[in-house]
Amino acid sequence: MYDCIVIGTGAAGVSAALTLKARGKNFVLLGSKNLSSKIEAAEEINNYPGLPAISGKGLKAALLNHLQSCGIAVTPAQVTGVYAMGESFSVLTDGQSYEGKTVILATGVESVKPVAGELEFLGRGVSYCATCDGLLYKGKKIVAVSTSPAFEEEVEYLSSLASSVVFVPLYKGAKLSAQNIQTVRDMPRAIEGDMRVRRVVFAKQTVECDGVFLLKEAIAPSALVPGLKTEGGHVSVSRDCSTNLKGLFAAGDCTGRPYQYAKAVGEGNVAAHSVCEFLSLSDKDKK
Amino acid sequence: MYDCIVIGTGAAGVSAALTLKARGKNFVLLGSKNLSSKIEAAEEINNYPGLPAISGKGLKAALLNHLQSCGIAVTPAQVTGVYAMGESFSVLTDGQSYEGKTVILATGVESVKPVAGELEFLGRGVSYCATCDGLLYKGKKIVAVSTSPAFEEEVEYLSSLASSVVFVPLYKGAKLSAQNIQTVRDMPRAIEGDMRVRRVVFAKQTVECDGVFLLKEAIAPSALVPGLKTEGGHVSVSRDCSTNLKGLFAAGDCTGRPYQYAKAVGEGNVAAHSVCEFLSLSDKDKK
Repeated sequence: MYDCIVIGTGAAGVSAALTLKARGKNFVLLGSKNLSSKIEAAEEINNYPGLPAISGKGLKAALLNHLQSCGIAVTPAQVTGVYAMGESFSVLTDGQSYEGKTVILATGVESVKPVAGELEFLGRGVSYCATCDGLLYKGKKIVAVSTSPAFEEEVEYLSSLASSVVFVPLYKGAKLSAQNIQTVRDMPRAIEGDMRVRRVVFAKQTVECDGVFLLKEAIAPSALVPGLKTEGGHVSVSRDCSTNLKGLFAAGDCTGRPYQYAKAVGEGNVAAHSVCEFLSLSDKDKK
Repeated sequence: MYDCIVIGTGAAGVSAALTLKARGKNFVLLGSKNLSSKIEAAEEINNYPGLPAISGKGLKAALLNHLQSCGIAVTPAQVTGVYAMGESFSVLTDGQSYEGKTVILATGVESVKPVAGELEFLGRGVSYCATCDGLLYKGKKIVAVSTSPAFEEEVEYLSSLASSVVFVPLYKGAKLSAQNIQTVRDMPRAIEGDMRVRRVVFAKQTVECDGVFLLKEAIAPSALVPGLKTEGGHVSVSRDCSTNLKGLFAAGDCTGRPYQYAKAVGEGNVAAHSVCEFLSLSDKDKK
């Protein structure tokens, strides 16, 4: 049982991890070895105090170096669900599950809005994770919408199972060559069906299918954590980064604007302190 | 008329200034050329993301370098009062006054609690600023309590005016040699008097006097800004760093715990964004 499970390796998650480490907590940092493709994509950052005119790549390297120098490892994982179990939390990923007394959600924000029907059909034909749900679609017809080249491997995996894949990259320069992959440039507008997904409506066409994979780096917090209070797609937090779920805290872009590195590291720090306080209070309760 | 007056050159004030600069605002940054003696005193900081195991001196140098590289100058000033004037703010310092459409208060926190009677006698024998009020004590007997060697010059100035100065340094290694300065090692407990200050009660003795100068880097926000809502000595702020006074925002240690660099730069960033939004909305109102 971890003291804390930090979900996300952007600026907020890294900041939370550094403070938890400084405070001697037993935690796991779930995310990407590459930290964040969003940070990396930033051209020049001028207002992250102490690192003038740094590139996104430079900031990413500085954060990676900081984690390494503190002996903090990133556990590569794609989180598919966070469940409040009463006294603790279960965090499910593509590979396994983790148990923690507390959770810090630092999942970032997706610039693409949820598609109509996305939450409604979640678990009934809508999936966020090829590794988790791919086997359900053996010999079926699927749609895979992806926001990043990081997911091309997942799409290839899906194509090895499905009869056919309509691949909809929402970025430039995608190239997938499997015979049963048809690449389509379009914008998803709605997911429709009856008991299960039957079709995806795009701006220019409608595609019949048995399932749709929405492959994106930041999943809507409300889809990830049942019962979590959100507002306009952002996690509702107090000044101490606490949410409506006791023991679950949120930090960084997922809590709302401004989407800024300085704000994210600040909230990561605050959330980690709130976790320490929460753990100390629960320990006292038990005595 | 400035778009914004940033008060304080700790991590929060520097972060706010960097973001205001990036957003092209017309602002003044009031504080110390040395930024903050508190930052400088930190031995090693392990959880400021991107700058692993940095000393306080190192972080201070990094922040100073960042300001310089962005062409932001610090205006040395000791702020003695912030007054809401309706559509704008007047900020009074030891030297002059500044007018701004908005204010970001980033004044830090004083580890020394206000002394009993301090706020009650403010302006009636209690002063925070030798340059501002020294002349009122020509030939009088005064007490000067100081939290930092930075104020020794002010105490010397006071000794050139007053008949005698009881100097109470709350730090080690103070050395002032003027004949009419008596250095006393004690802790102030209460300021007492009738219409005006008559004496300061210390832990070990009581000193009769005509006035008391409390020389400290962070003045209690409630003493600095009439009408500002505080709680337990901290400025009450919303998540966007707004206070109960429209157009006045607060960031960093002065808004409460955790007293951390990451939290301070985060709030400085958020406060600057809130200032930009506030300015944009007021401009629209006027059209």
